[in-house]
Order: sequence, then structure tokens, then C-alpha cells
Amino acid sequence: MPYAYNGKILKVDLSTGKTSVDEFDENWYRTYWGGSCLGAWYMLNEQRPGVDPFSPENLLIFATGVPTGIPAPGFARHSIITKSAASNAIADTEAGGFFGPELKFAGYDAVVIKGKAEKPVYLWINDGKVEIRDAGALWGKSTGEAQALIREELGDRRIRVAGIGPAGENLVRFACVINELKHANGRTGTGAIMGSKNLKAIAARGHNQPPTADGKTIRDLAKWFADHCMENPANRGLRIYGTGEILAPYSKDGLLPTRNFQTSTFEHAEEISAEKMNETILVEGEGCYACAVRCKRVVKADEPFQVDPAYGGPEYETMAAFGSNCGVSDLVAVSKANELSNKYSLDTISTGSAIAFAMECYENGILSQQDCNGLDLRFGNGAAMVQMVEDIAHRRGLGDVLAEGVKRAAEKIGRGAEKFAIHWRGVEVPMHEPRVKGMLGISYATAPIGADHVVVEHDTDFDFNAPQVFMDQARSLGILCRLPTHTIDEDKLRMYYYLEQHFSFIDTLDICVFTLAPVRAYTMDQVVDLVSAATGWECSLHEIMKAGERRVNMFQAFNIREGFRGKDDWLPQRFFEPIPNGPRAGYKVDPEQFRKALRLYRRMHNWDPETAIPYRAKLVELDLAWVADELAKYTEVPE
Amino acid sequence: MPYAYNGKILKVDLSTGKTSVDEFDENWYRTYWGGSCLGAWYMLNEQRPGVDPFSPENLLIFATGVPTGIPAPGFARHSIITKSAASNAIADTEAGGFFGPELKFAGYDAVVIKGKAEKPVYLWINDGKVEIRDAGALWGKSTGEAQALIREELGDRRIRVAGIGPAGENLVRFACVINELKHANGRTGTGAIMGSKNLKAIAARGHNQPPTADGKTIRDLAKWFADHCMENPANRGLRIYGTGEILAPYSKDGLLPTRNFQTSTFEHAEEISAEKMNETILVEGEGCYACAVRCKRVVKADEPFQVDPAYGGPEYETMAAFGSNCGVSDLVAVSKANELSNKYSLDTISTGSAIAFAMECYENGILSQQDCNGLDLRFGNGAAMVQMVEDIAHRRGLGDVLAEGVKRAAEKIGRGAEKFAIHWRGVEVPMHEPRVKGMLGISYATAPIGADHVVVEHDTDFDFNAPQVFMDQARSLGILCRLPTHTIDEDKLRMYYYLEQHFSFIDTLDICVFTLAPVRAYTMDQVVDLVSAATGWECSLHEIMKAGERRVNMFQAFNIREGFRGKDDWLPQRFFEPIPNGPRAGYKVDPEQFRKALRLYRRMHNWDPETAIPYRAKLVELDLAWVADELAKYTEVPE
Repeated sequence: MPYAYNGKILKVDLSTGKTSVDEFDENWYRTYWGGSCLGAWYMLNEQRPGVDPFSPENLLIFATGVPTGIPAPGFARHSIITKSAASNAIADTEAGGFFGPELKFAGYDAVVIKGKAEKPVYLWINDGKVEIRDAGALWGKSTGEAQALIREELGDRRIRVAGIGPAGENLVRFACVINELKHANGRTGTGAIMGSKNLKAIAARGHNQPPTADGKTIRDLAKWFADHCMENPANRGLRIYGTGEILAPYSKDGLLPTRNFQTSTFEHAEEISAEKMNETILVEGEGCYACAVRCKRVVKADEPFQVDPAYGGPEYETMAAFGSNCGVSDLVAVSKANELSNKYSLDTISTGSAIAFAMECYENGILSQQDCNGLDLRFGNGAAMVQMVEDIAHRRGLGDVLAEGVKRAAEKIGRGAEKFAIHWRGVEVPMHEPRVKGMLGISYATAPIGADHVVVEHDTDFDFNAPQVFMDQARSLGILCRLPTHTIDEDKLRMYYYLEQHFSFIDTLDICVFTLAPVRAYTMDQVVDLVSAATGWECSLHEIMKAGERRVNMFQAFNIREGFRGKDDWLPQRFFEPIPNGPRAGYKVDPEQFRKALRLYRRMHNWDPETAIPYRAKLVELDLAWVADELAKYTEVPE
Repeated sequence: MPYAYNGKILKVDLSTGKTSVDEFDENWYRTYWGGSCLGAWYMLNEQRPGVDPFSPENLLIFATGVPTGIPAPGFARHSIITKSAASNAIADTEAGGFFGPELKFAGYDAVVIKGKAEKPVYLWINDGKVEIRDAGALWGKSTGEAQALIREELGDRRIRVAGIGPAGENLVRFACVINELKHANGRTGTGAIMGSKNLKAIAARGHNQPPTADGKTIRDLAKWFADHCMENPANRGLRIYGTGEILAPYSKDGLLPTRNFQTSTFEHAEEISAEKMNETILVEGEGCYACAVRCKRVVKADEPFQVDPAYGGPEYETMAAFGSNCGVSDLVAVSKANELSNKYSLDTISTGSAIAFAMECYENGILSQQDCNGLDLRFGNGAAMVQMVEDIAHRRGLGDVLAEGVKRAAEKIGRGAEKFAIHWRGVEVPMHEPRVKGMLGISYATAPIGADHVVVEHDTDFDFNAPQVFMDQARSLGILCRLPTHTIDEDKLRMYYYLEQHFSFIDTLDICVFTLAPVRAYTMDQVVDLVSAATGWECSLHEIMKAGERRVNMFQAFNIREGFRGKDDWLPQRFFEPIPNGPRAGYKVDPEQFRKALRLYRRMHNWDPETAIPYRAKLVELDLAWVADELAKYTEVPE
């Protein structure tokens, strides 16, 4: 048996009820590394282009990384890969929690689902055995209720469940998948694909951790991490405040998306800040499998809304999306919206963004109060926002329109609503301001999964703490100089190209970005050591950086096969207009500079600078000649 | 003071006699790493294009790598960089021995020489102090005599001397630079540039090893290497037989250049083999500074030639160049030719090749016995060969013609001699057969320094021992599969692209290829650890692989600026014709396949596939935007 992975991929056809197992050799695992690349391999090999995302033909892939589940902080995550109903492009989203390790302990590195069940079902994976079980009684239930019923029915309280609530069932295009009531595979609408397949949940229970090559090194590094991670101010901040630690400083520095990105500073930031959360509604911090940081929040409130602590608490993206970006200064309302999102399986970024979009339409007379389900949907109305979360999940009235995402909603509403639709490729923009973080716009415009903040969340524009740690990490990649902030220039594109590969291998291997991202605890060396210790492969940073680049290219190839081209890389118009006020008043993206940067970015990737189709040589270099051959069936792959 | 390097580069203008010091910050050293990249930096920044190689304007740079001189096996080398009088392209050549470490201990990371002394001089670098001293009494002397005279004059027997003999003085276009009588900066004719400047030698003495960041790790790894290197069959072979260990197996397998590359197996291979050397003339093995392998040979003979052990003994390249490639089966004649080459400062590969070329001309009636200084210059005539080495060094008769290199000699001789001139870009081809080693032809055709065997000496076509070690090392670069042998295909180009960077960083950092090359002792991890321990920089393989790629691109840029283009990448016609007999009868390079491979190679490099000019994006990615700007003054740099 190879190390650190099972060598078994479960395949399930929900249309026929048949299951089977794919097995690959060690080299295959060392090339694709599980996670995103494994998913992309199936999407390119076993799915034809042009499939409707909601069709039974669309694959839905749950995948762990090769090292997922080793008992060290940061290896708790899993990926979901499918074709997005929001973007019609590749969908990829990672979640922490406990589901990924449990799936691996249950005997499978990944589950590849196709088809559509005739009636609601859930999948039960129990130490290698697989059952497709009736979910009639679960349909319509919240994620929490469904999890409780599954555990009760199967008689094991330690079963881990990843599933959807009503939003997924109702094909809300930004529905997510939730595990343990609070960990979300958030972006790109994978919950809607799950719903379209009548698949309520996957339940997993396993008792067999695959053997690792060098358990001592893993234990030593896990202990090192636990002993030392709090010496890093970034991790201290995460433990004490969670990811929301950045909200108040962001506002102060003019980086905080506010009122549907109209501006970048929020006068009530203190009221929705992590500090305020700690003083008022915080119950405790929580962590993922084997993690010492415990950056997750648990909050509880009784008024003006009852907030159930079982659903955790809001992270930064959520606090900004329901808070500043909706102009809402009530942290309890924000927390309630978060609770409902987790309960119903809604992505908080897109849900908050959809409501912020509607609010701006309402304030500009494009939507009337009657259009808004009778709600006074002005910015700042927390109660209306909370109600609208309910209405989106259940597709009621305006909620049904917003459930399509802001791109389609704007098309449906018309009357100029489009200019308030802050999305790219149908994916709502995360809570980071590309007019201030210079390189983030490149990420939003080019990320194959649509507007993405994970590729390079930490633009060097933002190094609010631990800059020295950042620089040490970046130096391991060969980025030696401090770079100018708030600009797009050639040196920053160079940094971006390297960091993109860096963040991409983190996602491919399903490692937590917070344990390794340039400001966090592990050094590059330590992560390479952990991966080597897990697998017994003498890995190098060169090798796993190439895995990251492989992921970007496989995703790009998928999108090219679907018809996307360089011309589809751009930003919402708002970002080319100046921020009207606050500390960053006047900041904007220059379209000519941006166009030039996109060209340079594609050249750096060794892609055609206009079409963004990878040159065959780049695919060959990444051991992806077969991808070039696949693309060549549909389009000219430049030699 | 930064670690592991002095931060001081000595500049000497021989025309004016002025010296000065350049100082750069830590980031500069971490970007260029000393060695080849340091040299290329000066060649691009301080030399205009079109300079005649023999003009005083040509720079001649002796450079150590950042980690050179740490007390661990493999860090004993230094580079010489200049514009080659053989190729008019970049020249770069590394040598082992003791000179590199001594130069560093004497206070300088590099010496950048320009101008021309009015009369013969040598440079004396003594613990930071610099003198340009009269070399009138040394001119015309052999390398050994000159070294002895310098040590006597300066009164220190431990002075290390790198210098030239008569061949360099006489501007033989393939003259080399010799240190310690037997270590050669062999290829590309750097000794002739030294001669053109009236610079006989550089003498160095230093007592100050720059501090390292982590001496314990260096000591531990040096001890590990000493304790374990002999467990590796490749190193055992090196210690017992020297590099000549491969000669007999090469012949048996049809890989051994024979009679000017007419065929690839030599019926007398056993007689010139390392085994034969061990049985007959070997005195002892010797090593470089701090090395445990001791792969160098010392031989002694009395008849039919007296061979002085002070000049070491022949390595594989020499044994093949003077042996099989001249059809000579007398190991003593081969050893004498080697001794004379070291004494006169001649590159053995080019010298042997020039004589082999003349022999084929002679056997085909293009040269008469009279043309050949009265010698019966048929293949196999060892005495004639030895005499011709003398004649080349002293530019006597045909020797004067051959001293220009086979390209120019063939032009001068005419009468169809050109088809026997086995060179590329004016640099004679090393002793590896590109018709059998599939990827080697790509190296010969594209290497910026002209036909080069160091970039990828160990094509996977050749894995005569320790294949498992090879695979483990290659896997660290992400090359997982066994590749087909004796072909050029896409997967092998992928391997080549990675190995090219790998061998290139080895040369850039002036590490010995035999301590790290895919079949040798250190793992990739250990080399990265050594470099980190030397410098205190938390390096990664990603970072130093990029340094290797930076070197290739800086060299390529230099050549582009000189007017070279993709059309200049090709092979001597002989390699497109089949090997006529032996185990590899019928093997040849297919021109169409080769043309296609060159295109793919350039695309992989992110260079224009026709012109071979790097795209600006590639240079930017490597932190070389300034190189793109420099090139843009002379040609269009594609965006």
C-alpha cells in the first residue's frame, strides 16, 4: 500500500445506482496530488465540453489531497470540483473541518459522482463500504437537522457529514456545501450541483488512517507548530480574533468593501469588528482536525436575533459581505445571516453581495419596496437583510431572482441594474478591494473559477503585521525585494506569478492557507518536509510549485475547452472608477495598464497573450501533453 | 558582513593599471549567486556588443559561487566568463582544484579584468591587497614553471595560481586556464583571452574564509558525504577509476566517439580504458579542495613517452579525445598529450578534436604529409598526435592552422575539409555521441557557449549504473517516469528543460556536478541545506532552479545581443548521417524531428520559437527586466 493515500477513488453513478473504484499508481498521485488536480483530471478526461452544469452528465467530485489527514495542523481540508452553474467554468472550492480526513480514513481519496438520483438520496461511506440511501426524510431540512437525522439513523454520532440545506436543493446558483454545520466549501455554487443530483449529503466514517512514511517527523513538526505558532503575530491574531481581525484595520486603511463596493471604508466598522465580537457574542474559538490555531468562531445571541452557536460564527468575508458591504452595523444581524447561510447552505460572500446589489438597486429606484418582498431594502437595514437570506434560500419573490446570482439577476431586472452587479464570470466578488490591492484585480479577472480571493489574498499591498515573516517566506520563492504597493507593475506580476503557483499548490494538496501563507507559521521547508514525511517521496518546493502551476493550467484548459478566451478576463466597471472618498479616495484601476498587465501575465504563463490558450510546450512541460491533445480536438493549440 | 561571500568584486584595468572594488548588497548576490550569473551580469552591463574577443575591451571574469569554499565536498570550483574567440558568443567554463576557494579567502568573490597590459604581467591577490606584477620572466614558460617561479618570487609555496602556458600566449583559440597544473577551465578558449591581455596568471593567497551561517550543518553534511559517498556505485567508480570509468562501457554500448566521430565504438577501447590505466601508469587519485571523492588521476610513464605526474592524468573527455577519437590505442601517448595540454594550457577536447579533424583530412587526401609538418598523421599514430599537440601550442605549420579551431581551419584548408569539422559555433564537440544520446544534440545545438556536454551530460539514455539514485533525484524535480532512450520526444524535452536548469544552477553556484548530478551523492535536499547553511538564506530548490534558468537566459540574451538567432542552432552534418557500424549502426539524428524539437525547446523556455529571443515576460519573471531593456536597444524584444 502506498503511503498517505488509499490509491482508491470511489465512483458513483446516481442515475444507475452503480458504484465502482478507480485505482491509479503512485506516479499518478505524485503528479496530480489529489484535490483540485485530481478533480481537474476527471473533468478533462470524463466530461465532454458544453455540458449543462445542472445536467446529470456534470461530474461532482469530492477530493482530498495526498497528505490530507496527517495529524498535523493544516491538513484537514478537502476540495469540491465540478462545472459551476454560476460561471459555466470550472468550479473548485476547499473547506476545512473534519470531513476530508474522515473520507480518507473511510478508505477513499476522492468520490466522483455523476448522474442524478430519481429521488433524494445520501451517500454513506463506512470503512470502504458504500451505500446510496434514501434521503426522502431529509429533503427540505437544514444542514444541522440533516446531519442529526443521518447520525441517528446510522447510529453513530461521530459520522462526518458534508451536505446541503434548502438553498442547494433549490438550485440557488451560489449554494455551498457545509460540513459540521459551519465549514463551507463556499464559492462557485457546488451546493447547487449537489442539489441538481438529488444528493442531500455524503456521510463518512473511517477508522483507518493510511500509513505515513515518517510518523516521527510529522509528530515533531505538529508539536513544533503547536509550541511555536503563537509566536507569530498573525497566528496570535487568528486565535484571539479569528479571520475577522482584519476588518477594523481594513476599514481604517480604506480596504473594506462597503455598500456594494461603492466605497472602501465603513464608518461603523468598529461595531462589526472582531474586537466587538469578542466583547459581546463570542462563545469560543474552534479549530479543524489536528489544528492548534483554532481560528474559527462560535457566537451566540438572543436579540435582536436568536443566533444558534451550533452554526459557528462569521469569518472576515462574511462580516464584510453582510456587514460593511450591506452597510449593516449590527453584528448580531450579520451573525444571524451567517447562521442562516450555514443552515441553508448559502455562500456568505455571494449571498451578502446579492443583497448589497439589491440594496443599491433599491436606493437607486431600480427596485421598489414591492419588488423587494415588501422590505425596505436600504443599506444598513439588518432585519431586511436577514429576511432576504431566508427568501433567497427558499427562492421567494426577489429572493428567487437574486438566487440566480447578481449577473443573471441584473439581466432579469434590467433598467441599468447591471452596473451594480459586482461579479466576474457570474461569481460575486469577494471582500477585497482591487482598486487598492493592486494585484487582486488580476486574480479576479483571470482566476479560472471566477473572481477569486484565495489565489493571492495577501497582496503585498497588505502586510498589516508580520511583514518580516512574509518576506522570509517570499524569499524562499526568490522574491527578494519589497515591492511597490497599490500598483500593477512588472515586478509585482513576477511576484504574482510565483505566489499564484504557491497558493495553487496549497489548494491542490488541500493544505490550509493559514498555516503556510506568506504570513503564517510553517516555513516552506517545513511544509515540504511534512509532505515528504507523509508520502515517503523526496519532494522539493520546485516539484510542488509545479503541481500548483499544473492546477492553474488544467483549470485554464477546462475553461478553454468550454469556450472561454482571454477576452473574458476583465473586471466589473466599478473598479475602473475612482473610490469616491475615504483614505483611498481616487484609487482606481487603469484600464490600459490593466490590459497590458493581463497580456504580460499570459505571456508569463506561456499562454497565447491574446487567446490565453496555453502553448503546447507549456502543457508538455507540466506533463500535460494529453491535455494539449484533448484541447486540440476542439480548438487550435498554438505550437 | 554577509555570509559566505565577501561582498567585494575586484576590478582591474590592465591598460591603466588601476584597480577598484565593486560592492553589491545581499539581494544582488542572492539573485546572481556569483559564478556564471555574476559574470553574465558584467558582460551585459559593462561590455558593448560586437567587441572583438581579443580586443582590450573584452572583459575576462574569474568568479566564485556564493557558497564556494565552504568546507564540504563539491564547493571547490570557480568560473571564467568572457566573450569567446572561438564562437564570438558567451564563454563560460568551470574548474575544480583550489583556486576558487583561495580567491574567496583572499577577499574577493570575483575578479573582473579589462584592458590589456603593455607587457606581460600577473596579478597578485594577497588577503585583500592587489598588485599587478611584471611577468616578463614568466612569458613563454609552461604552467608548471610559471607557478613555481611565482611561488618562489613571492616566497609562499601555498599560493594558488591560475594561468596560461604558451598556448594561451599564442592565442590558440581553444587555449584554457590551468590551476595547480592539472585543473582546467577547459572549454571556449578563455586562455586565449588571458593571453590577449598579456596576463600570464592570477596568484591568490588568503587566510580568511567568510563566515557561514550554520557551520555545524556544513560539517555534519560534509561528514555524511565522506562517510556515505562510497555507498553510491557511481562515486565508488569515480574514486577507483576516475571519470574514465565510462570509456570501456561506452565503447561496448556504441557511445564512444571514434576517429573523428566516424563511428561510436573503438576496437582498442580496453587498451585506453581506466582499468588499463589502473593496471599500468596510475600513481594515485587526487581530489579538489575539501572533497572526499578524489576522482582526479595522477599518472606517470617513462616510455614510449615520459609523462610527468605533476600534471595529473587524463579524464574521460581527454582519453576519448586523444584516444578513440584519434584512433590512438596507446594510453601513454594519450597521457603525454594530456600532460602537454596542461603544460601549455590547451583544452584537451578541442585539441584532440582538431587533430582528429586533421587526421581525417589526411586520410582523405585533403592534407598531405608535407601539409602535416612531415607527420604521417593517420588515425592511430600516437607519436604524430603528441607532436601535433606541441605544434598547435606553438603555432607551428599545420599547428598554426589547427590553433584556430576546426571551423576556421576547415575554411582555410578548403577542399571539402568542412565536412570533417565537428564543431558547433566554432566550439569542438565533446566526447558524447548525439546520435545515440538523444537529447545531447539539443544541448550541442542550443547551449549558449557552443557545443556543451555539461548541461545534460547524463541523458537518461545513459544510466550505466545507479539508475535508482538517478530516478530518486529526478523525482525531486518532478520527473517521475522512465523515459524512452535514444530518441527526442516531448517528454524528454520536458526532462531536458528541467535538467538544464538543474545543471545550470550547479554551474552558477560553482558546485561540482559529480557531487550532485542525478547519479551522485548529495540529495537535492542536502544541497539546498548546504546553500542555506552557508548563506543563512532559507533557500529552496525552486529558488535555485530559477537561478539556473536565469543563467541560461542571461547567456542567451548576451548571444542575442551579439546577433545570434534561432537559425544558428544546429548540428554538424555528420550527426544527420547514420553511424556506419557497431552496436549503434544506423543511429542518426532526424533533421525534421530535430527542427521540431528545437522549436518546442524554445517555446518551453518562453522564447520566440523562431528567433530564440526571450519574451520580455520571461525575463521579467526571472527578475531580468533590465536585460529586456538592454536587448531592446539593439533588437525587438517580443512582448
